[in-house]
Formats: sequence, structure tokens, C-alpha cells
Amino acid sequence: MATGARPADTPQPGLIFDTLLAYERTAALRAAIELDLFRAIGEGPGDVPWLAARCSASERGIRILCDYLTIIGFLVKQDQRYGHTPTSAAFLDPRSPSCLASISRFLGNSTMVASFNDLAEVIRHGHTLLPGEGSVEPENPVWVEFAHSMAPMMAPLAAPLGAIALEGVSGPVRVLDIAAGHGLFGIQVARQHPQARIAAVDWAPVLEVAKANARTAGVEDRYETLPGSAFTVDYGGPYQIVLITNFLHHFDPPTCVGLLRKVHRAMTPGGRVAVLDFVPNEDRVSPPMAASFSLVMLATTAAGDAYTFRELERMLRESGFEGVAAHPVPGSPHTVVTATKS
Amino acid sequence: MATGARPADTPQPGLIFDTLLAYERTAALRAAIELDLFRAIGEGPGDVPWLAARCSASERGIRILCDYLTIIGFLVKQDQRYGHTPTSAAFLDPRSPSCLASISRFLGNSTMVASFNDLAEVIRHGHTLLPGEGSVEPENPVWVEFAHSMAPMMAPLAAPLGAIALEGVSGPVRVLDIAAGHGLFGIQVARQHPQARIAAVDWAPVLEVAKANARTAGVEDRYETLPGSAFTVDYGGPYQIVLITNFLHHFDPPTCVGLLRKVHRAMTPGGRVAVLDFVPNEDRVSPPMAASFSLVMLATTAAGDAYTFRELERMLRESGFEGVAAHPVPGSPHTVVTATKS
Repeated sequence: MATGARPADTPQPGLIFDTLLAYERTAALRAAIELDLFRAIGEGPGDVPWLAARCSASERGIRILCDYLTIIGFLVKQDQRYGHTPTSAAFLDPRSPSCLASISRFLGNSTMVASFNDLAEVIRHGHTLLPGEGSVEPENPVWVEFAHSMAPMMAPLAAPLGAIALEGVSGPVRVLDIAAGHGLFGIQVARQHPQARIAAVDWAPVLEVAKANARTAGVEDRYETLPGSAFTVDYGGPYQIVLITNFLHHFDPPTCVGLLRKVHRAMTPGGRVAVLDFVPNEDRVSPPMAASFSLVMLATTAAGDAYTFRELERMLRESGFEGVAAHPVPGSPHTVVTATKS
Repeated sequence: MATGARPADTPQPGLIFDTLLAYERTAALRAAIELDLFRAIGEGPGDVPWLAARCSASERGIRILCDYLTIIGFLVKQDQRYGHTPTSAAFLDPRSPSCLASISRFLGNSTMVASFNDLAEVIRHGHTLLPGEGSVEPENPVWVEFAHSMAPMMAPLAAPLGAIALEGVSGPVRVLDIAAGHGLFGIQVARQHPQARIAAVDWAPVLEVAKANARTAGVEDRYETLPGSAFTVDYGGPYQIVLITNFLHHFDPPTCVGLLRKVHRAMTPGGRVAVLDFVPNEDRVSPPMAASFSLVMLATTAAGDAYTFRELERMLRESGFEGVAAHPVPGSPHTVVTATKS
């Protein structure tokens, strides 16, 4: 998140007002998605009475919401009619195959949002105020929501990750997909490489989502599941490829090293681990989306962070890996970091 | 609020992610103000251990907060030390005479913020879900908070408003200040014109704040108060000048006309009314700060709005005024609209 613009040379009092009211932007976009407004915008003439009827809402409410969405860049307004911007047409209208609107459910999850209610107290303590490990407490139902609703955001990453994980690989391979979630990453590897067999680790209710996606993708005969905690479940193996996606950021470095050592033991020599994560630059304040993810980890976990490449490299080396390399995913805030078991 | 940028020509999925997490920006800035971080930044060497000690907070929390504030434009970072941007130095460090940090208390008022918790439902209904008239229910304590904490934001408007209200005025004048709040607008007129006597209308507990400010300004001998509702209290008079500041936006046009007629009756012929408000352009989507204020009125009032100049002109004419003119206040989202009793 965050625009990451260079600070203005002259004082900008408006930025303070804007930031103290930024939560209204979140509320407006979430409300529009909930009211199915972006579908109505794509379908209809776009005048207030029509939109209000289509969304079963008041005309006053729809007019003010649509004006606000125009101001913040999600609609255009002309002659008292509202229409899509390129962004809302591609990513917010449910009729678009690339629609991301469902991410509002995970990102607006009440537990996650409530973690920011008293952020000053979080900062005093230095960790989440949620009980235990926060969002990564065992069997936290938020990960079922993640698996359902974040899939459209993660899907565009699957093909690049699959290509990176499979580069130079031939013949039968066994692939371990840790914290599989929606399963799309392992499934994509199975689709790209017909001789790949996938074993997916996650909590059992989450794996139900992954299994359904594997069936839809037609790879269920090469897809097994290992329900439980990635820290304690028996991985079986050995594996030639291991995917660790959107996972290490939840834990402190010693915990990550413990997991990576366990992964290392379950791999064949020459095997490749591929870590997909938010990886900020060493300055920790760029690029904005990856760097700002640290705040989410502060508010929702006991000791997680968005790790820089050097930090990930150190953890991977400490765990026995070598040849650590970064592969930024173009057009995304994510980076794939690969390493090899010698 | 809102940057009001022209929508991008290519789809920007990052804008959706950014907006769904925009509430984190609000949380981060509010937390920094609560922790008195900006004072510490101005005082000290700006390294994490020093800042954490000075703010009685954890190093992990301070590091992640300061990185985040750097990303969103409120700090700069160099060599692991954080420093002020021009904006934070001028408007967030309590040692600065122009510090605005207190506005976080009113803008973060829990009742106001909670009005956005179920914005979809607000839009269905077309009005606030708060009881009765919402934020303008009689004696709502939020206006005492407003009088205390929003004064630094309103203070820069007082001199331009006073000059506009007093233009061409000479000799003894009686001035009515409706919804006086902090009282700064009427007080400024008294300071600019030693023959002006001010009568301030607001709820009694709010007027205590205004009276204290009048004493500080040394104009208490020309300052009287009329406690009660602006709709029912006896104004006395007649007045040559009436100020109506940040008030009409809370009500629907017929209610505004009722108030303006009451004001008209309390004025001398040739007297001037000066309305200070957020006045969006006729397109209702620009400029961004004034136009986006409508959403606040949707969420917190029964029927309020940010009115355009044409709408205000119509209400003023309907109430017997003429010569309606707009005076934008440079560098502010506010406009002063003046009119004359013929």
C-alpha cells in the first residue's frame, strides 16, 4: 500500500487531514463492493435513480458514494452519470474475469481490522494484542477466508512462480506446497509440469478449498494433502521442489530458520526451495506495498515482519541452502526468492 | 480529503489493495500522535532505540511505525535515523506554533468513526444510523471536543473570514456568530474591528471554550454568549454582520432556509451574512477535500451535505438575501459565501 511519493518540499496540511480520514476510503470501497455497485455500473446507464434501484439503496446514499468513488479514482462522472475507470472495469466489476473484489472480505476481516483499533498500544508492546500468535494461531478460521477470497489476487502470481520453480526441471518431481491456502501455486506447478506430484500443507479446513481448486484444474490425481501445522506435520518426501508462499513473514527469524531446516531435511540434494513473499528493499521503506506490509505483521502477529532479501538470504544459508537468488514478479509487490539444497 | 487525481489510463490493481488498507494510514498517524512521536523526532537523534525510550514503546513497534510513516510521507529516513518532513515539522510537532495534531482527537472521535462501520447500510438507508439527528443531536458532547481540538485547523481561516465579513464596515457593529464552537471566527472579527461586539450562539458547554478563547484574546468585554440551539434561541439583535461557519452542511435545504430566514429577521437592512463552508464545484467531485466532505455528512447526519455555490445561493435568495458572492479562502478547502439583507 501507500503511494510512496517523495515527501513534498513545502508543508502539506491537507495530507494530515487526508490521512486522518483515509479510513473513509476503505469504508467507501468496501460498501460499494458489498452493494454490488460495480456490477451495476457496468450493466446500466449509470444515473443515480437506476443505480439506487439496482443496488436496493437510497438515491442520496448512492449519489454521495458515487461522487466519493469518483474523487478517489474508482469511477468517472459525466453528465450526472457514472461509469467505470479502467481499474474498476478490470478489477472491481464481477463480470470481469480478473475481478479482485473478493479480497475485500479477507482484507476487511473484522479480526484483522480490529488489530489496528489501538495501534499505539501495539507499538508500546511491540506485538499483536490478539491472543497467542495472533493471526497464525492454530486453526484460525481467517485462513479459510483467505483461501476463498484472496485467490483472485494471488492467481496472477502463480504462472511466474511456477516457471521460476520449474526452471530446468524435467522428469517426475515431487513438490511440497507449504501453507498452500487456495492451492493455486502448487496447482499451477502441476499444470505446467505433467510429471509433478503436489503435496499441500495447511490446516484441514483450508485444504478443502485447495482440493476443490485442484479438482477444478483437473490435477486432483496428482494432488495430496498433509493437514496440520507446517511446523509439526510429517512432510514425507523427499521433494525436488518446495514452495513457501506468503508464510515466513508471520514469524521471527529463528522460527523461520527452524521451519527452513525442516524443509531442507525433506528435500533431495539439488532440490529447489521457492519463497514467495513481500520483500522490501534494504532501506525498508521501498517499494511501498512490500515495505508497508511490516505494519500488518506488527498488528497481527507476535513477531513477524516483511523480510529484506539479505535477511531471507541469511535465514536460508543458516538452514543449509545455497545459491540464494531474488526474482521480482513484474507488476506485483511480490518477490520469489530461490535457493538450492547442495 | 482524497488526492483527486485523474484516473489512470491503465488498470491499477494496487489502488484497490491500497484503498482497502487505507484505514491503516489513519491508524498509524493517530498512533504516532498519541505516542508523541513527532515531538521525539524533532527533539532527538532519531534512531530507533532513542525514539522507543522517549515514547515508552518497543523498538520493534517504533521501527515499523517510523518506516510506515516514511512510506506515507510523514518522515524521512537516512542512515537508520528518522527526521521530520516539512509537513511533520510544521504541522505535527507540538513544538511548532502551527501544529495541527489535536485534530486527530475530533477526527478520530469514536462516534464519528463508528458511523462508517457499516457504510453499506448507511447508503441503503440514505442517512446516518446514529440516533435522531446524528452528530447534531442537541448537546452532543462531540462539539466540545470540536471546539477544543479543531481550533488549530480553523485558526488560519479566521483572518481571511474576518476581512471578508468586515469589508467596508465602519463604526459600531453588532456581530452574531452562529455555531461559534471555539469562537475563533467571532473573536477575530472583534480583534480586527475594535467597535465590533460579538454574540456567540452554541450549546452552553461549547461556549465555555469560546469564552475562554475570548478572554485569552482580550476581547471578553465585547463578547456575549447565547447558549442553546441556533434554531430556537432568541438571537436579540439586530446585527450588521452574521457568521455561519461549518454549520449549514449538517442540514437539508429547507432546514437551512428556515435558519437563514431567522437570521435575516435578526439583521439590519444592508447587513451582511458570511457563510464559511466546504463548497464543492457544481460537478460535486472537485475540489477533492470539499467534495468528499459529503460522505461525512451522509454517515453522520440525517440529511446534511456539502452544498455547491448554486445551492447556497438558492437557499440565501429564498431567505431574502441578495448579492450572493463566493470568496474561496486560498490554501484551504473552505469558501466564504456572502450575501446582503436588502
